[in-house]
Amino acid sequence: MNFHVMTLFPEMITQGLSASILGRAQEKGFIALNAVNIRDYTLDKHKRVDDYPYGGGAGMVMAAEPVVRCCRAVMEQIAKENGGCPDTKEQKKCPRVIYLTPQGCTFTQAMAKELAQEEDLIFLCGHYEGVDERAIEMIVTDQVSIGDYVLTGGELPVMVMIDVIARLVPGVLNNKESAESETFQDYLLEYPQYTRPEVYEGLSVPEVLLSGHHAKIGEWRRQQSILRTKKVRPELLAQAVKEECLSKKEMKFYREITGDGTKEK
Amino acid sequence: MNFHVMTLFPEMITQGLSASILGRAQEKGFIALNAVNIRDYTLDKHKRVDDYPYGGGAGMVMAAEPVVRCCRAVMEQIAKENGGCPDTKEQKKCPRVIYLTPQGCTFTQAMAKELAQEEDLIFLCGHYEGVDERAIEMIVTDQVSIGDYVLTGGELPVMVMIDVIARLVPGVLNNKESAESETFQDYLLEYPQYTRPEVYEGLSVPEVLLSGHHAKIGEWRRQQSILRTKKVRPELLAQAVKEECLSKKEMKFYREITGDGTKEK
Repeated sequence: MNFHVMTLFPEMITQGLSASILGRAQEKGFIALNAVNIRDYTLDKHKRVDDYPYGGGAGMVMAAEPVVRCCRAVMEQIAKENGGCPDTKEQKKCPRVIYLTPQGCTFTQAMAKELAQEEDLIFLCGHYEGVDERAIEMIVTDQVSIGDYVLTGGELPVMVMIDVIARLVPGVLNNKESAESETFQDYLLEYPQYTRPEVYEGLSVPEVLLSGHHAKIGEWRRQQSILRTKKVRPELLAQAVKEECLSKKEMKFYREITGDGTKEK
Repeated sequence: MNFHVMTLFPEMITQGLSASILGRAQEKGFIALNAVNIRDYTLDKHKRVDDYPYGGGAGMVMAAEPVVRCCRAVMEQIAKENGGCPDTKEQKKCPRVIYLTPQGCTFTQAMAKELAQEEDLIFLCGHYEGVDERAIEMIVTDQVSIGDYVLTGGELPVMVMIDVIARLVPGVLNNKESAESETFQDYLLEYPQYTRPEVYEGLSVPEVLLSGHHAKIGEWRRQQSILRTKKVRPELLAQAVKEECLSKKEMKFYREITGDGTKEK
């Protein structure tokens, strides 16, 4: 899968995604990262890419032209690499262009799964002040926000999105790692984890984990997940119940801890 | 304000936050970034920091010892820099330790505002598989998630948090930039922005923005914000109405576009 990023800080993107699992995935060719400098596509003789906003107000706005020209160049490159002359069927399927903005839909694991099906994704990093709306209308297919907070630019959010999406691309995670990616699948948060030593500064590992009794361990972990989700994200637990992600036994436990046990008594 | 980050990838943190506004803020001394390698605090002769989870399952778990020792070293350093012997009042105020995890409360602009009041913040970046729960119990004061998606590690989320928080530290943004940081303040998304040229590939800037009539421009922008929020994040607009963030005139516009206009007719 190929990630193309239109940005004013291409080194930030390439450096930020070079460590750990994502670095390995690039070396092995499961994913490719193509950071393109928008500034290379301005026709302004001073290489400017922004200008004052019409109607006044603070901050600068990224001009439409360099953004649109940059995007077209990336699209052409993708078409070329797909070996397509403009008439082939493949060529007509335009890659999605994602603009990172607080004005977008909120990014979720479900959205990541859908985006991981694509062969190429193009991202546009704006400054906070924004990109000329006409460029957005012309080239952007998806406006996405990673959360309800204000960042300096789109670079960090793009790295977040690429990390989340790339982990879902076949081959990027090894089998051992893949098995972990189940958080948010059934709306439950993960259970607590422990490793050696058995006692650390007076604190012991819960006994059940040392029992070797796999069914009991499994049950304890699910209960811990339910307890934790209830405490931190009750709205997720409600969703889990609504979509029937809990077993009959787990529902009994749920009723006990929520006091919603009238039916059971 | 000082940001201390406990991580296995310290270069990723320092490089990722060196560009643009955050880089300038560090040069000018408004914020300081201290990335500490957890691996330097393991007592294992092979420098290992993780081990298999008790009770079985995929993945590795970060051991308690290097994390706790690293945190204590950072705390001592902070105390020393505050010039405090352990008895001074300042010393007793322990800095908050934030663990980045999908199991945490969701990060928001409001939380960022609160955290921006602190003098020192310590962040712990785990692997996705997690950190030994006992270390979390011993040192962590806040568990935070930047959104409902699964990342490789805590490094990217920490950079996101630091970017958002640092922007709220006095001096980091200049006056021109500060004025922009109003998104999510009154639950409305930003209005569209336009810059030169007036016509780009046949698309014109909305006429009102060229009128020079500031009141009309202000009114149009607020209406655009309301329209956009209604389309993308209706739950935020409902909140804006509930908390009376809209003027009487804007409420009239709101009723027109939502069809909730019975009272007005």
